Amino acid sequence: IPAIGVGMVGYAFMGRAHSHAWRNVTAFFDPPLRPVLAALAGRSKERAEAAAASLGWAAVETDWRDLVARDDVQIVDICTPGDSHAEIAIAALEAGKHVLCEKPLANTVAEAAAMAEAAERAAARGVRSMVAFNYRRVPAIALARRLVAEGRLGELRHVRAQYLQDWIVDPEFPLVWRLQKDKAGSGALGDIGAHIIDTAQYITGRLITGVSAITETFVTERPLAEESAGLSAAAGTAAKGRVTVDDAALFIGRMEGGVLASFEATRFATGRKNGLRIEINGSLGSLAFDFEAMNELWFYDNTQPGAEAGFRRILVTEPDHPYAGAWWPPGHGLGYDHTFTHEVKDFLEAIAAGTDPAPSFADGLRVQKVLAAVERSAADGSRWTSVEEIEEDA
Amino acid sequence: IPAIGVGMVGYAFMGRAHSHAWRNVTAFFDPPLRPVLAALAGRSKERAEAAAASLGWAAVETDWRDLVARDDVQIVDICTPGDSHAEIAIAALEAGKHVLCEKPLANTVAEAAAMAEAAERAAARGVRSMVAFNYRRVPAIALARRLVAEGRLGELRHVRAQYLQDWIVDPEFPLVWRLQKDKAGSGALGDIGAHIIDTAQYITGRLITGVSAITETFVTERPLAEESAGLSAAAGTAAKGRVTVDDAALFIGRMEGGVLASFEATRFATGRKNGLRIEINGSLGSLAFDFEAMNELWFYDNTQPGAEAGFRRILVTEPDHPYAGAWWPPGHGLGYDHTFTHEVKDFLEAIAAGTDPAPSFADGLRVQKVLAAVERSAADGSRWTSVEEIEEDA
Amino acid sequence: IPAIGVGMVGYAFMGRAHSHAWRNVTAFFDPPLRPVLAALAGRSKERAEAAAASLGWAAVETDWRDLVARDDVQIVDICTPGDSHAEIAIAALEAGKHVLCEKPLANTVAEAAAMAEAAERAAARGVRSMVAFNYRRVPAIALARRLVAEGRLGELRHVRAQYLQDWIVDPEFPLVWRLQKDKAGSGALGDIGAHIIDTAQYITGRLITGVSAITETFVTERPLAEESAGLSAAAGTAAKGRVTVDDAALFIGRMEGGVLASFEATRFATGRKNGLRIEINGSLGSLAFDFEAMNELWFYDNTQPGAEAGFRRILVTEPDHPYAGAWWPPGHGLGYDHTFTHEVKDFLEAIAAGTDPAPSFADGLRVQKVLAAVERSAADGSRWTSVEEIEEDA
Amino acid sequence: IPAIGVGMVGYAFMGRAHSHAWRNVTAFFDPPLRPVLAALAGRSKERAEAAAASLGWAAVETDWRDLVARDDVQIVDICTPGDSHAEIAIAALEAGKHVLCEKPLANTVAEAAAMAEAAERAAARGVRSMVAFNYRRVPAIALARRLVAEGRLGELRHVRAQYLQDWIVDPEFPLVWRLQKDKAGSGALGDIGAHIIDTAQYITGRLITGVSAITETFVTERPLAEESAGLSAAAGTAAKGRVTVDDAALFIGRMEGGVLASFEATRFATGRKNGLRIEINGSLGSLAFDFEAMNELWFYDNTQPGAEAGFRRILVTEPDHPYAGAWWPPGHGLGYDHTFTHEVKDFLEAIAAGTDPAPSFADGLRVQKVLAAVERSAADGSRWTSVEEIEEDA
Repeated sequence: IPAIGVGMVGYAFMGRAHSHAWRNVTAFFDPPLRPVLAALAGRSKERAEAAAASLGWAAVETDWRDLVARDDVQIVDICTPGDSHAEIAIAALEAGKHVLCEKPLANTVAEAAAMAEAAERAAARGVRSMVAFNYRRVPAIALARRLVAEGRLGELRHVRAQYLQDWIVDPEFPLVWRLQKDKAGSGALGDIGAHIIDTAQYITGRLITGVSAITETFVTERPLAEESAGLSAAAGTAAKGRVTVDDAALFIGRMEGGVLASFEATRFATGRKNGLRIEINGSLGSLAFDFEAMNELWFYDNTQPGAEAGFRRILVTEPDHPYAGAWWPPGHGLGYDHTFTHEVKDFLEAIAAGTDPAPSFADGLRVQKVLAAVERSAADGSRWTSVEEIEEDA
Repeated sequence: IPAIGVGMVGYAFMGRAHSHAWRNVTAFFDPPLRPVLAALAGRSKERAEAAAASLGWAAVETDWRDLVARDDVQIVDICTPGDSHAEIAIAALEAGKHVLCEKPLANTVAEAAAMAEAAERAAARGVRSMVAFNYRRVPAIALARRLVAEGRLGELRHVRAQYLQDWIVDPEFPLVWRLQKDKAGSGALGDIGAHIIDTAQYITGRLITGVSAITETFVTERPLAEESAGLSAAAGTAAKGRVTVDDAALFIGRMEGGVLASFEATRFATGRKNGLRIEINGSLGSLAFDFEAMNELWFYDNTQPGAEAGFRRILVTEPDHPYAGAWWPPGHGLGYDHTFTHEVKDFLEAIAAGTDPAPSFADGLRVQKVLAAVERSAADGSRWTSVEEIEEDA
Repeated sequence: IPAIGVGMVGYAFMGRAHSHAWRNVTAFFDPPLRPVLAALAGRSKERAEAAAASLGWAAVETDWRDLVARDDVQIVDICTPGDSHAEIAIAALEAGKHVLCEKPLANTVAEAAAMAEAAERAAARGVRSMVAFNYRRVPAIALARRLVAEGRLGELRHVRAQYLQDWIVDPEFPLVWRLQKDKAGSGALGDIGAHIIDTAQYITGRLITGVSAITETFVTERPLAEESAGLSAAAGTAAKGRVTVDDAALFIGRMEGGVLASFEATRFATGRKNGLRIEINGSLGSLAFDFEAMNELWFYDNTQPGAEAGFRRILVTEPDHPYAGAWWPPGHGLGYDHTFTHEVKDFLEAIAAGTDPAPSFADGLRVQKVLAAVERSAADGSRWTSVEEIEEDA
Repeated sequence: IPAIGVGMVGYAFMGRAHSHAWRNVTAFFDPPLRPVLAALAGRSKERAEAAAASLGWAAVETDWRDLVARDDVQIVDICTPGDSHAEIAIAALEAGKHVLCEKPLANTVAEAAAMAEAAERAAARGVRSMVAFNYRRVPAIALARRLVAEGRLGELRHVRAQYLQDWIVDPEFPLVWRLQKDKAGSGALGDIGAHIIDTAQYITGRLITGVSAITETFVTERPLAEESAGLSAAAGTAAKGRVTVDDAALFIGRMEGGVLASFEATRFATGRKNGLRIEINGSLGSLAFDFEAMNELWFYDNTQPGAEAGFRRILVTEPDHPYAGAWWPPGHGLGYDHTFTHEVKDFLEAIAAGTDPAPSFADGLRVQKVLAAVERSAADGSRWTSVEEIEEDA
């Protein structure tokens, strides 16, 4: 199997998850390319080296430009905050490197559009790009899409999706980068709202066409952060700073084909830890999913006799289920990290096959436009805002 | 125990439920007044008599005016469609009869306002009125309100409420009165949306102040109905008629005290039979409820150590729980009909005590204004519509 | 509809439940006989009269013999502790009265056998008898039996049943009659173990043929009781008395047709309030039920494709479900008391039809023999004890 | 960090799981020793080499004796069927190699006893051994043990444990090695029953003292297997062979301290894929777990007011939970494979610290004796069989 060199930018929460995937993909799948963990880029040499040692990367760069330039790097994997995505991704694509980029694709529609253009140009030269909406690779979510695509839900009527977390309920939780607009673009909206937008569009195959929205920042000032990792952090000094992003975003909308949709992304849903939930109702059936029980998909088949119908808890660990057959016997569930392994497997297959992987940067741009529509509607008294309007302004 | 005569108008779905309550309340509770099922009014003498025999009513009237006029009737219980509520209720109140009226209070804000005024005038003379939002008397919902009132949820942040049914998913389901605007006022919105509006306001003690909404009628023509009972019906001829109400209503809104809220009422949620669901998140805790498991309340107490916290499934059948002690030992759950027994028990207590029962007609009016705001927002491109605006126009 | 007079002996927990059923059955069902609540018997005239007033009985007797002798009583409903069942039931049957008797049928196999013989003799004269295993009338359990009878589970392999309560976990809970062998016959075994034995045999249609058992009394002395109602009670003086029944009984067994079974009945399952649970596995499917969610039956259909199979939560409130159609629309669940309404409806139908209702006294005797086998096995070092052995000794 | 060489024998289901753990442990934990995947042993050179390439092993041996003899191997990891455990483990220990051995420890008490003795002798020389009951390292199970150890359950009363699978329900499923007594020792009993025995003893800290058991082989002949992997396999020819192990084993028992226990291990629980379930009731609280939802532990705290008590669903993904802090943010669940990573981490720590890891071979022997008691009781008409009796005979 031919090798392919990977270079990763960033090594925090997402970097650890991606490293795990690159390190393990060949032990469970048979991708046509064998990833080599060539180099990791981070500004602090010392910390980058420690990360590389722990995560299995062979070398370290302190400037991402040097990483992109390396001959032994054919794939650039971007795991940094959103404010740097556009610059790195475009440079890498132009240097002929395949790019896997964390979500949201960028912090603005303009950046995302530039990235999507760069991706399109690159694709013409056989260079691939993919945005890392990893939840598409939860077996249950992939199965949901398959059932919809097979027509098992009939005519779609409703989508209701929520992404509920609670890690900043405490007003003393510090002002980490995810709470700063210049780094993160937006708050709950872009960080987790982006996931449910993508998931809803992915499962249904329908795009969101317009929205009416509310956003809110419940806690407007927080202690400055001393250090942070993943979604945890320690408050530093007594000094406080302004929270410049939303804590919660709610919107209702319409999707192609007459589907009504309701979305909510919040970091103030006390007790909900990572509740990415989606329910879809169609004339022939319904589906429900909650990431807090990620190995389960609930399916209601309305074609069964009424006396026997009920939501079925499908344990998505069977050989016939997406991705599941590569792992363990039925009932031996997967975890969060497995979604990334599936992601890099599919990316490697697309690179080898010379096809465009999904979700593409164009898909990422489409999500970005919905995010922009939500922000505009919320800023303008919840007025109805179509995605088309955002497109026309872009 | 002194007796008090009850006269009921209407004997279909709600009439059966109310009769059951009047018939059984003294076997489980000790209300200060003993209800006597004096007379039932229905237009068809034959059908009314059959209903009276089955449901336990002593006499029958074919005109509700005669029922109101009866000397042996001190309480008038209105179980008819919404278009007749105002006329009957106002007449009864003016005749000095206590009134229990099914929800929604009326089909328009104007009617509801007239009813609320009549109720206020009547109250000055010691005549009581109550709107029958029976879900307030689900023990789990009453417990939820108690926990919020005790401050167990801290500062409230989010309400997300849904009322999901599926009884008209089939486009061949006939055009029953609940699908006709002149009878029902609105569709899913007024029938079941009214319940989640009231429930959300009841549990939180906060009013909805403004909304942005979408409504939709998925199936616009249906076969004319031959006969119907409860939520089931048989289609008659091949002739079709127009559905003049909404099939689904979605809205986001704000409540007093900075609470963000999301609501959805639909009759197209395939597989959800009577899914009145509400989740409330506060700084100190969260609550979740689904009527399909009506004896359970889920409570997350954020003051517990992180390693031990989790949503608790409280089986609301303990002696200390609202209403539950009157029935069976712990774990021996209640059903839908018990909520009505609780309702009439509370109503009888208020009459005897000379206090105003809740929910009052004023509460019903407030819900009606939210329904009007939803309809106006939906009709006007989802623009933000405050309840105040409705009040000013009323 | 012809009337039929009912006389009830006992008016505590079971008496309240049975009264509710007699009072309401005709409002929801159309039984061929209309029950008249003629008289209630209780030793204390004062308390019996209060109960009669509250529960709707027309008259009172202080000696059950006088109740049995009344001309206006055609059905005798026995709601007393087990030690009096045999005497009352046999006398009533011999007096030509139909008998509904609470479970367990008796406190010993000998008593139960005498009752079954009396029932058989009476049946020859058109007098009917039934033992009140009310859980057979939970719609979900009746549906489970139907699915098994239709062959939907294929060849049966496993039954695992538990009845879990916790009302005597506190060692200060007083010594109520249910903890005294002379009154109750046995403890958890006869009180709740009898229910799971009957339920397992009813759903599967297979009898238990032998068992190996353990029983235990965790708390051997308790305060004497001052007063008690249902499963709650207040401790009286500081004086203590000996608990003479089991707190828990566990047994494994074999059922006809090669089924392996596991049973557990306990009053020490902290947090489980009324957890009557049963799971049945067959070659073609499985069923699972828990009374704490009594409106749900879980069904796994192994004939479906593996990728779509899952335990389905059937909400047993559809018109096609046993008993459910008579009540409310789908999703409007039933409670504990509804099971008794179903019970008396079926009993009235059998009386009118001149057929033997189920469960018969013979069924009750069969359960009694299993209880005896469990007690004997437990007393004899868990040795295997066949029901046949009990029969031979009886 | 000093390196330590690992040699693994066997590379099928367990071999893949162990390899994953050795490969990844240092990316998430900071063990004091860094494992080097030195060599893998398998009889077929070709297949072993393919496995080594996929799973990350540097070299291959075709005889486990050569693997044990390698200088670069300090840990021998035994992932073969039970019939070879004793020979390999004893040889490795005598060669001064630390040993991690899959469960059950052996196929007989005699073998297990010899292994435990060898382990004890080796420990005296600083050589460590551990039996791979990986479920101890499920965070929820480790948390359960912690809660019991802290006294949160009070006096323990009940354990009910089941391990439910269904992979051989189909009578055409072939005769894989797990269905042959000479290879596997026993069937469901040793394969999955061993896990619930260990888990029950681990969480409660109480040993099983005696049992009464039933075992059964429902399908006594099966097609010969062509090839198999994990728990799946393809039937080969039409030829059939005899199943020589149990399909299901049920037993009731007593544990130290007056605990009553019920156990069931079966491969015929249709629809249950990997349902390792355990519930424990104590005077102060209860715990419940099901591996099919492995990130959840249900805890009932009986010291809370009755009106607020309920089983809490603790999502065991918090920083304060065992093992969880090393992985992802709260709510980002783990999967089956993570348990092995935890296992090797603990093993490496014990080796470095010079302490005896748990579960020890002595623990494995204790489980083996319970298995033997179950088999003896089942073979002898379910008669009560104490573990002491097995010990005396050993």
